[in-house]
Amino acid sequence: MNKSRGIYQDIRAQILDGTYPAGSPMPSTRALALELGVARTTVVTAYDQLLCEGLIETRPGAPTRVALVHPVAPPTGTKTEISRPNLSAYGLRVERIPPRYTPRSDELRVDFRYGDLTGSDFPTQTWRRALAQAASLACPTIAYADPRGNPELRKALQAYLWRTRGIRCQADQLLIVNGSQQGLDLCARLLLNPQDRFVMEEPGYAMARHLFMSVGAQPVSLKVDHQGLDTRKLTEVEAKLAYVTPSHQFPRGGVMPLARRQELLEWSEANDAYIVEDDYDGEYRYDIKPVPPLITLTAARRTLYLGTVSKTLSPMLRLGYLLVPEPLAPVFATAKELLDRHTPTLPQDALTALLQSGAYERHTRRMRRRNGERRGALLKHLQQTLGGQIEVEGADAGLHLLAWLPNLPVHLETQLLELARRKGLGLHSVTPLYHQATPPCIGLILGYAGLSLSQIALGVRLLAEVVRQVDG
Amino acid sequence: MNKSRGIYQDIRAQILDGTYPAGSPMPSTRALALELGVARTTVVTAYDQLLCEGLIETRPGAPTRVALVHPVAPPTGTKTEISRPNLSAYGLRVERIPPRYTPRSDELRVDFRYGDLTGSDFPTQTWRRALAQAASLACPTIAYADPRGNPELRKALQAYLWRTRGIRCQADQLLIVNGSQQGLDLCARLLLNPQDRFVMEEPGYAMARHLFMSVGAQPVSLKVDHQGLDTRKLTEVEAKLAYVTPSHQFPRGGVMPLARRQELLEWSEANDAYIVEDDYDGEYRYDIKPVPPLITLTAARRTLYLGTVSKTLSPMLRLGYLLVPEPLAPVFATAKELLDRHTPTLPQDALTALLQSGAYERHTRRMRRRNGERRGALLKHLQQTLGGQIEVEGADAGLHLLAWLPNLPVHLETQLLELARRKGLGLHSVTPLYHQATPPCIGLILGYAGLSLSQIALGVRLLAEVVRQVDG
Repeated sequence: MNKSRGIYQDIRAQILDGTYPAGSPMPSTRALALELGVARTTVVTAYDQLLCEGLIETRPGAPTRVALVHPVAPPTGTKTEISRPNLSAYGLRVERIPPRYTPRSDELRVDFRYGDLTGSDFPTQTWRRALAQAASLACPTIAYADPRGNPELRKALQAYLWRTRGIRCQADQLLIVNGSQQGLDLCARLLLNPQDRFVMEEPGYAMARHLFMSVGAQPVSLKVDHQGLDTRKLTEVEAKLAYVTPSHQFPRGGVMPLARRQELLEWSEANDAYIVEDDYDGEYRYDIKPVPPLITLTAARRTLYLGTVSKTLSPMLRLGYLLVPEPLAPVFATAKELLDRHTPTLPQDALTALLQSGAYERHTRRMRRRNGERRGALLKHLQQTLGGQIEVEGADAGLHLLAWLPNLPVHLETQLLELARRKGLGLHSVTPLYHQATPPCIGLILGYAGLSLSQIALGVRLLAEVVRQVDG
Repeated sequence: MNKSRGIYQDIRAQILDGTYPAGSPMPSTRALALELGVARTTVVTAYDQLLCEGLIETRPGAPTRVALVHPVAPPTGTKTEISRPNLSAYGLRVERIPPRYTPRSDELRVDFRYGDLTGSDFPTQTWRRALAQAASLACPTIAYADPRGNPELRKALQAYLWRTRGIRCQADQLLIVNGSQQGLDLCARLLLNPQDRFVMEEPGYAMARHLFMSVGAQPVSLKVDHQGLDTRKLTEVEAKLAYVTPSHQFPRGGVMPLARRQELLEWSEANDAYIVEDDYDGEYRYDIKPVPPLITLTAARRTLYLGTVSKTLSPMLRLGYLLVPEPLAPVFATAKELLDRHTPTLPQDALTALLQSGAYERHTRRMRRRNGERRGALLKHLQQTLGGQIEVEGADAGLHLLAWLPNLPVHLETQLLELARRKGLGLHSVTPLYHQATPPCIGLILGYAGLSLSQIALGVRLLAEVVRQVDG
């Protein structure tokens, strides 16, 4: 009797807090009794009580289902006593890092958030077919896979990198990672000690800066101009690693010219320092010629190259690749195994099929065309509506541009973003990407890959309205 | 001319080293010219040369394909100069850890390797359908997801943990991780500093020991008997964390009795130490009653609980979950975001569907039945064939048992394993799971989840042969 009361109370609480959603099937009394190790009658008694209360419903011949009830929050009786966590030095550093994730807001009519893609751009049919095929390949035994990633995928990527980026490498230098973020984590842990210094672009990719800082390393922020990292100050810097985005500097969009690339490489040789080249959106270039990555200039002695499918397929797949110098390959593989054994294999198989059949590059070209249209529309509307009030930077490549508002000083930023939000417009400032300096005026990162052409038009109109309001 | 020669040479090398496998389609000359940013005629010239050499084949109306050529190894002209890597302290520690991954050998007729599952046990149809359904859910925008994992999955797991393990928790305490290994990595990094001490079972799960040691922590190895960790010595130990497998000690299989559990919890309170409870095979128990996990005894103040689908579905999916005390939940979520943003979402959606529909538990029961049969067969054959020569331990639960060979001292181990390998039998010794001590005699971990009943019979027969040879 007491046991069935406990079961009843637990299920009741779970239905009320939405754990068992309305309409979902309840486990059969037999199954639940087996799981809980109690007599079936005990569960039947609990279910009867739930039925009485209208929390579950039965129909002849159908499984018992959860009735439509309104969840009540918060659930009671399960709060634990709060005590101060006993964290490591790493844990204490992580605690100070602002969490980045915010769910996409349904209230925004247009959100220029960078990193989002358009759902209908994803090749759903192709991917589903490739996944289904991979899932059907009968293998007699299921076992842990190669920590470096599926060998076929690494071969396919090796060929892809040569074809599309002019990179020559061995498949054994490639490591499949859970998105480029995990590649950065491997670099940070394996190459940086606490107190080591690393060169960081200012402004630059905040997630990389936070990550390198989380292992206790100290950023040396070097200014970025319209040609990427300004390498003149580099000679004075002693550091163990430099994080750079030479193909399309994030967020200012500059392409680093050859002379600077050579200075950077010379600096890395002189300092025995590693360079992490993040080619996060190398597939997207518009009016300009393809620029070979930094790594093609070197014998890959000190450059680690990061790529991802987050901008071509989807960031939710968490598929990236890290190309490391040969002497580093074994230790990176062991570390990857310690971190999480390996990246899930099914999506790796699906990506292999797409690369081998040419479907991946066809898709990438389609994406380049579509995002080229979005970019064109955005540039046109910005020019027409805000022509005299903005300066656009970094639109030659990638999936975003940077719009500076020279008339609006930074102290008006919060007001601008808040006004925009009230109009249903999501704006994202460049300020969090600065570490020591502040931007000269308000700067907005306008990501466009997640927007339709009409949303882009509306977004620019709303932007013009709020700029006028704040400026006026 | 020079350009097309370079393209020709690169493709030739890639065909010869197997990067482009025989029969695979080549990119069209138009597509490749676009990618490389060269004139189409340049690519056509290169392809003509490849055609001449018989490296590629064309047929009217079909894409150009790679001809059947025998790969030559190693490829030339891309070797980089080897220089001593400049690693962090973490990197240097990782370098000393033996890489664990070995591909499954096709030459073995029977391999008792622990962790392998039988391919046909995987619910291919169900999983494929769930994946396809998840992939088809049209969402207007693709964006980075919640670092803690899909909220629906965490709710479904909350209910599942209560139903099957008697655990009461909030969905917000759950973190979806890339297999339990990533959960261990989060614990190691966030809770342990270099030089901190951690309690480790002896013998115990080597991957956990290596992981905690990789962050610089020092193991305090405490002996394990047939009831799991021997807690008597615990009072003398100062440590910051204890790693335990109380439901089914790995590898000896003991179930920790209540009195020891209470001693462990009291120790953790007195030391302000965390307990990491690895419930790696909690779904599998045979003749015994279900044992509630350690975490159900506490208010979850200092216990972190790890679960996985690696033993029920597949280790290749890399899906696990970590249940943390409420005060730790935010810092674990931020760390997970820094590590790799989040776990891939599609497989999370598929697992949610399986949990909500009850298919997961039906599958688990089927797996328990099948593995119960394998276990029964293994026990029967061992008893019949090697009855007097072995002592079996830890067979009440899980997917492996430990077979001690009291007549065979440890120095004969290499010989035994080598002889077995020559007969096509894969054996795995308990020795690597010891850190300071050595086993009293040869001990074999016999994993049976990846074997058919006839393989089990054959495996025991071969085992008896090699035991007789070495013993004789």
